[in-house]
Amino acid sequence: MNIKDYMENVGRAARSAARLLATASTAAKNGALRAMAGQIRARKDQLLAANALDLTAAQADGLAAALLDRLSLTPAGIESMAQGLEQVAALPDPVGEITDLKRRPSGIQVGRMRVPLGVVGIIYEARPNVTADAAALCLKSGNAAILRGGKEALRSNLAIAACVQAGLAAAGLPETSVQVLTTTDRAAVGELIAMPQYVDVIVPRGGKGLIERIAKDARVPVIKHLDGVCHVYIDADANLDMAIRIADNAKTQRYAPCNTMETLLVHAAIAARVLPPLSKILFDKGVELRGCEQSRALIPQMKAASEEDWRTEYLAAILSIRIVDSLDAAIDHIARYGSQHTEAIVTEDYSAAMRFLREVDSSSVIVNASTRFADGFEYGLGAEIGISTDKFHARGPVGLEGLTSQKWIVLGNGEIRT
Amino acid sequence: MNIKDYMENVGRAARSAARLLATASTAAKNGALRAMAGQIRARKDQLLAANALDLTAAQADGLAAALLDRLSLTPAGIESMAQGLEQVAALPDPVGEITDLKRRPSGIQVGRMRVPLGVVGIIYEARPNVTADAAALCLKSGNAAILRGGKEALRSNLAIAACVQAGLAAAGLPETSVQVLTTTDRAAVGELIAMPQYVDVIVPRGGKGLIERIAKDARVPVIKHLDGVCHVYIDADANLDMAIRIADNAKTQRYAPCNTMETLLVHAAIAARVLPPLSKILFDKGVELRGCEQSRALIPQMKAASEEDWRTEYLAAILSIRIVDSLDAAIDHIARYGSQHTEAIVTEDYSAAMRFLREVDSSSVIVNASTRFADGFEYGLGAEIGISTDKFHARGPVGLEGLTSQKWIVLGNGEIRT
Repeated sequence: MNIKDYMENVGRAARSAARLLATASTAAKNGALRAMAGQIRARKDQLLAANALDLTAAQADGLAAALLDRLSLTPAGIESMAQGLEQVAALPDPVGEITDLKRRPSGIQVGRMRVPLGVVGIIYEARPNVTADAAALCLKSGNAAILRGGKEALRSNLAIAACVQAGLAAAGLPETSVQVLTTTDRAAVGELIAMPQYVDVIVPRGGKGLIERIAKDARVPVIKHLDGVCHVYIDADANLDMAIRIADNAKTQRYAPCNTMETLLVHAAIAARVLPPLSKILFDKGVELRGCEQSRALIPQMKAASEEDWRTEYLAAILSIRIVDSLDAAIDHIARYGSQHTEAIVTEDYSAAMRFLREVDSSSVIVNASTRFADGFEYGLGAEIGISTDKFHARGPVGLEGLTSQKWIVLGNGEIRT
Repeated sequence: MNIKDYMENVGRAARSAARLLATASTAAKNGALRAMAGQIRARKDQLLAANALDLTAAQADGLAAALLDRLSLTPAGIESMAQGLEQVAALPDPVGEITDLKRRPSGIQVGRMRVPLGVVGIIYEARPNVTADAAALCLKSGNAAILRGGKEALRSNLAIAACVQAGLAAAGLPETSVQVLTTTDRAAVGELIAMPQYVDVIVPRGGKGLIERIAKDARVPVIKHLDGVCHVYIDADANLDMAIRIADNAKTQRYAPCNTMETLLVHAAIAARVLPPLSKILFDKGVELRGCEQSRALIPQMKAASEEDWRTEYLAAILSIRIVDSLDAAIDHIARYGSQHTEAIVTEDYSAAMRFLREVDSSSVIVNASTRFADGFEYGLGAEIGISTDKFHARGPVGLEGLTSQKWIVLGNGEIRT
């Protein structure tokens, strides 16, 4: 079968499963999720065996160590995948929730009911655990899912898919509720992102290159972020200890996540007290610092930051540092160089905190806490399918609610319009 | 100047105005709206004169009577435009609203703040009053607006734009907050819908042809609906009088709106009691009925409905009628032929009402009231920029809230992630 026909079949099956899933009971969805967790535990050996084949092939292909690490399943990782499914089962069901029901002068009651988006396409790279995570979030939110993982993880993904299918079947839900593509042909991705009749939204998870390609060619909405050039701004009136603790945590707790700080802005009035102790902590942890001229006057060991540095998401032990003369200058710097992902201010000044909250146009704006909190689990969403830096539909961490929409409902008593 | 450069300038000015508007005070926005209303009243004669020139040119070009009617401004229409601006001033300001603030186990408080989308592009046809309406909704929701009206209304639109600019200036807001394009070159539309760096969303208002073209070529999100093939389903357990009253109103209160019923579905068990009196009312009002075989057996004067009729938005005094054997058959018919706009059920059966509400996947789902209520004013949104049948971001009538997004805010006390 050619790819176009294959994807047409997948799309049609997903659309038809979506209609059933939209009205599936909470009990059936939770039952399926728990059955999937049971299957994953029961088939641990098969999962490890499939993953071993993937790993052997990937090593033979010379895959980089970091990618091999992401591809690798361990007994602990398998248990945590099963627990993740159970955690999604324990979350409240967003579908069918009725809110804002108000009586209007005409006599009708108008409100909103939360409903699934329909069919969600997920495109991801090496991590096989995304297969279980994404399946769980889509199912719980009443959406059918079409999953397309990296080609190096195909055997692992199909083994996980078998657990997912068995769980669906055990709960009496259509097995086509979650479909893992059996082809690794790139053309399948091209079809998936251009079938608005079958797919309602695409969530790409992976590197910037993958996401840029998909965003450029997609003919359906995409929930995505491209960059996380996140800032911490230490205001003139910051608590010094708090500022250092937050800046240290935002940079060094982990280097690779998208919510890690990449540029530190410091008010000139406090720089001489912040930068010497902070730079010592960061140097001791092996972080490379790249500063503006004023910062380098205080800390001569810093390298010079270039214009390019202000725009760069290092995802590494590198930090750019700039001294600014005012809150306005900090907000302007963020507007000019930021990626609208996550920015934090450290301040004891109420007006500065309120202005920063209101004026910084990012998906998460934080006062006196680390940027590392910008995360679905930390925000209480229970899980996260991705982070969006777009303003349309969903912004910031996207959980179950971001995979739903709200329709209007009207409860009348025979009213007509006059 | 060529069109590309012209639109680049317009886009850059809008983006820069948007940043100021996002933090403009409610008082300044409301002051501008009231000043605009004052200007429109004060310049009534200039508006009528500009409109007379548009009308003369349009008549010379042989514009159809219906379009001339939409193009025409009257003293009453001008007063109602001014009142519309004052009504938007009286609506609550959605920007800055903080909701869902919850304390998390880590100690941080997480919530959401409502923020403008940024820059809204509105593309519309002959009606000049859209210029004032759209400017008002965008301004109140903190968005900059780029307005592109029909070429036949250019003089009227520029005269209204002068009132809008004067109102903005009186309130100290940037005049580029609302820009009405001074060119009628079609290439300007092509640029407008393909400048994601300057424009965050496009709202096309007009005929299906216009909207299809824009949706096809847009490189930014579009809030739109293409069709309104709306259904009323009269269930077996309907109150007979109520069913007839609602079906009559849904079809005949006005023929042209998108929320007017185009297909009536009737349960077989009640058809013999509903269709004879209802068809008499509709025939008396000059409505053409096109029925399935079973309906025609009851009402022989009906024409035969073709497969195409079930998919057609007549926007005219025509109604297609089908007898169905069950609620399931009604829901299936709507899923197959509907446009996900607005559907109503008339029933006294609780379970049927609940199933219809949950299972019908339309932007508005109504129990025991006319489809004609699917409207921003009737729903209490205060005003409406359009109706969306997409599921992403905004569904159904779109008011101020649909022109905003929500960012996450975190209020901390020095928390770091561990």
